[in-house]
Amino acid sequence: MSQDCIFCKIIDGEIPSAKVYEDEDVYAFLDISQVTKGHTLVIPKQHTQDIYHTDSDVAEKLFARVPKIANALKETYEPIGLNVLNNNEEPAGQSVFHLHIHLIPRYGKQDGFGAKWEAHSDQYSTEDLQSIAAEINNNIQG
Amino acid sequence: MSQDCIFCKIIDGEIPSAKVYEDEDVYAFLDISQVTKGHTLVIPKQHTQDIYHTDSDVAEKLFARVPKIANALKETYEPIGLNVLNNNEEPAGQSVFHLHIHLIPRYGKQDGFGAKWEAHSDQYSTEDLQSIAAEINNNIQG
Ligand SMILES: [Zn+2]
Ligand SMILES: [Zn+2]
Repeated sequence: MSQDCIFCKIIDGEIPSAKVYEDEDVYAFLDISQVTKGHTLVIPKQHTQDIYHTDSDVAEKLFARVPKIANALKETYEPIGLNVLNNNEEPAGQSVFHLHIHLIPRYGKQDGFGAKWEAHSDQYSTEDLQSIAAEINNNIQG
Repeated sequence: MSQDCIFCKIIDGEIPSAKVYEDEDVYAFLDISQVTKGHTLVIPKQHTQDIYHTDSDVAEKLFARVPKIANALKETYEPIGLNVLNNNEEPAGQSVFHLHIHLIPRYGKQDGFGAKWEAHSDQYSTEDLQSIAAEINNNIQG
């Protein structure tokens, strides 16, 4: 537990939450912003700041629970789609620095969520893409 | 392998891709749309349509690889943030029906990605949230 972390306090019961699911590794609760109805956060009980600082065994336990929570959301509210989103670092929209995955059920184009999505396919040749991929691959550890 | 699936054909090498990472369970390659530079897709080798249809063991193996690919992206291009996004069903932005996780490095507010994010905190009382959470919890299987 990290002392000043609001999500650690939620897991601990020190701060109340609308709990959707809990097991030994994972806690899920409603995001109070309810960007769409049923908007849920799934978090690991072990405090970790963001995806960069997360061990693969914490990441795998966390995501292992996502299909069943997603199916429960589908069963409950019959959304027409679901966005699963994890924001890392403030410029990407992270505001609480305990890793969390948003499950955002979708009900239509005019609901509370949407993505700006600009394709830049015309700016990269096949050779450019191969060289970018090689650069990233070169930095993968382990 | 699903016969008409473009991502199964990419894994199989039948369709070329700019490969970022591969192991026995997971394949990662550049999204040709390059919404931002380094925009990568991480997919399970086992064909699965979307998060609803994904077994927890496939989900966990998939997400276990995300931290190291995220760190390689950070190391390579020093983005100021990273969005990890999985879209399910067409209204949520899914266009290829083989489960995939987008890793979208962020370079500023004016880059190719952004999220519409409308908070509705004022529309739900504490009691409303508790009752929504209980409804979802009631539909969680296993
Ligand atoms: Zn914490
Ligand atoms: Zn496939």
